[in-house]
Amino acid sequence: SMKFDFTDHSHRRYNPLNDTWVLCSPHRAKRPWQGEQEEIKKNELLEYDPKCYLCPGNERAMGIKNPNYMTTYVFRNDYPAVKIDQPDYVEELDTKEKRDSLKSRLLKTQSVKGNCFVICFSPNHSLTLPRMEVDAIMHVVETWKQLYFNLKNESSEGVYYKYIEFFENKGSAMGCSNPHPHGQAWCLDTIPTIVGEEIKNMTKYFNSNGTHLLGDYIELEVEEKQRIVLENDSFIVLVPYWALWPFETLLIAKEHLCSLIDFQEKHVQDLASILKKITTKYDNLFCTSFPYSMGVHQAPLHGTEDECNNSWFHIHFYPPLLRSASVKKFCVGFEMLGEAQRDLTSEQAAVRLQGLDGEKHYLDTL
Amino acid sequence: SMKFDFTDHSHRRYNPLNDTWVLCSPHRAKRPWQGEQEEIKKNELLEYDPKCYLCPGNERAMGIKNPNYMTTYVFRNDYPAVKIDQPDYVEELDTKEKRDSLKSRLLKTQSVKGNCFVICFSPNHSLTLPRMEVDAIMHVVETWKQLYFNLKNESSEGVYYKYIEFFENKGSAMGCSNPHPHGQAWCLDTIPTIVGEEIKNMTKYFNSNGTHLLGDYIELEVEEKQRIVLENDSFIVLVPYWALWPFETLLIAKEHLCSLIDFQEKHVQDLASILKKITTKYDNLFCTSFPYSMGVHQAPLHGTEDECNNSWFHIHFYPPLLRSASVKKFCVGFEMLGEAQRDLTSEQAAVRLQGLDGEKHYLDTL
Ligand SMILES: O=P(O)(O)O[C@H]1O[C@H](CO)[C@@H](O)[C@H](O)[C@H]1O
Ligand SMILES: O=P(O)(O)O[C@H]1O[C@H](CO)[C@@H](O)[C@H](O)[C@H]1O
Repeated sequence: SMKFDFTDHSHRRYNPLNDTWVLCSPHRAKRPWQGEQEEIKKNELLEYDPKCYLCPGNERAMGIKNPNYMTTYVFRNDYPAVKIDQPDYVEELDTKEKRDSLKSRLLKTQSVKGNCFVICFSPNHSLTLPRMEVDAIMHVVETWKQLYFNLKNESSEGVYYKYIEFFENKGSAMGCSNPHPHGQAWCLDTIPTIVGEEIKNMTKYFNSNGTHLLGDYIELEVEEKQRIVLENDSFIVLVPYWALWPFETLLIAKEHLCSLIDFQEKHVQDLASILKKITTKYDNLFCTSFPYSMGVHQAPLHGTEDECNNSWFHIHFYPPLLRSASVKKFCVGFEMLGEAQRDLTSEQAAVRLQGLDGEKHYLDTL
Repeated sequence: SMKFDFTDHSHRRYNPLNDTWVLCSPHRAKRPWQGEQEEIKKNELLEYDPKCYLCPGNERAMGIKNPNYMTTYVFRNDYPAVKIDQPDYVEELDTKEKRDSLKSRLLKTQSVKGNCFVICFSPNHSLTLPRMEVDAIMHVVETWKQLYFNLKNESSEGVYYKYIEFFENKGSAMGCSNPHPHGQAWCLDTIPTIVGEEIKNMTKYFNSNGTHLLGDYIELEVEEKQRIVLENDSFIVLVPYWALWPFETLLIAKEHLCSLIDFQEKHVQDLASILKKITTKYDNLFCTSFPYSMGVHQAPLHGTEDECNNSWFHIHFYPPLLRSASVKKFCVGFEMLGEAQRDLTSEQAAVRLQGLDGEKHYLDTL
């Protein structure tokens, strides 16, 4: 009888971080593509762009002028998605009892206060993480750490922020509206849904097994080897078994660091170094400035003891490209209405990433 | 003191269908856009394209020839994401007990069998739903109904399909690889994650309230009025309170129809008619062939009594456009790593859609 073949037969893989399944259709990687292709943009950026609102010395919205910053520069987003200065929401009920009870069941609302920051990685308009020096990336990590620390201790009229999400949208395919290398940080007085789900699942895992989900997972992957892409003293990068995006990776702290607060100098350095390597591999994959959304998951700024202790520092990379610099994976139709779906397997993606240079960038070999 | 203003203050709205929250930042609709814009493609399609693999009489992959079909035409996808003919997956365990237990916790896998169909809506290469006659759209609905009925009674080697997901990806922005009007149907021997979650939440709601979630929701929206876009004897279309996509809508059966099996002739006609109207409004919104993913949610083909009885026929429309034919909403960074997020409110979107013509298509008024 036929044997089940992971590279040919459809299967679902379980994502223990968010308690859902991903449908994997490995044989489908073979089909031809006739749909939309991303435009390939040559990297011809200048080091300084007089029209860029993120470059040092330039004017932003509302007439604010950037300082002549030299390393990493943080400012409050001029169009923040959340604000501190707004009234609380109080549900207004009608007099009709039935309608009131339907409303509070079906039109549930919470007000959200928060703050949004933009983090310019470098004053140089043309640099991206893989093109920056490790020392310069260390400034980015230090900036994250400092912001985390400050916001943990800062309250606005007695309201403490519960979570800060650090992320980067890279490339126009990922909705990035300015190529100047930058990330964002959104902090809220609530734990965002996706983070809350992860922490809930990590807590459940800890309560039933007495060990940490990501700690156990690293142990297993180190034995299995096939999905590991990069490793140094403090961190590991792998294609998770349950990856959704074709070349998705998960960067995990090897020891139990709950948040950036736990980072020693060595961790800062090792994180900067492995970030440079994974993004270099990404650029080398399709010889393009590789688009992705990436973001840090860690302990809440303020949360229950369980929420804080069961968190484990990690970074998700969600890159859309599938076959080339111009053909991406679409998470549409079935993926939106049925179930997350991928074509090539995590193991196949890992082999591709393992084979790439993590030191030398393709632009330096031209 | 300031009053909470839904059009100016950040808040979260609860989605009772999937038990998550959406962050709403209404003031943010005002910011300028400097990022990627979709290319505007003029609709210059021919009624017949000799190179289209979906047109009548043309050759598809593997040398199969389409018949000269006159209405709606269904065939098995030449590159199906799931297949019937594959072995079952049996977990292979090592001898080491510890590793085995980690594996079965963290590398959970299920095999998935199924089938994928392509449904050509019309032989005319240039037509889309809003450009088709109601009679012709009735053929599409009849085809869905027939497929649902057939697959409910069909088993492959004793395996019954549990769910069939009907969906359409329209437009290259939604990963559609061929402009010939078509939808798809994927059937699986498992209930897909997103559908399963909805049914679970509907069941929970029924068990605690003794009434149906969507039945109650319609009742409430009919009283509130402001989010309703279209209505006829059998169906209602509204912008759900918890919408994620800027102009997302939800089409709901007014009476408790669990699935297409419950459809009388009148329902088929009313569904075809309201589908034509909502897609006409969509095209008229930005004077473009409006991209979206849409899909049907209904009772499983085979499920528990609870799963079947608590299902309620509805259709989700997820359209990406935000401000114009070329500027779309990106669900990236914070949305992927933190929480679903939208800018304009559902009520603002509903007002826009209410004001548009649902009878006359903009191309007919030129
Ligand atoms: O129409 P196709 O080529 O089968 O494929 C399209 O729909 C599928 C199901 O939503 C997606 O997985 C693909 O990314 C998309 O291009
Ligand atoms: O960088 P911007 O302009 O703030 O915005 C970008 O990131 C945000 C957070 O992920 C998204 O909501 C926007 O759609 C995207 O364009």
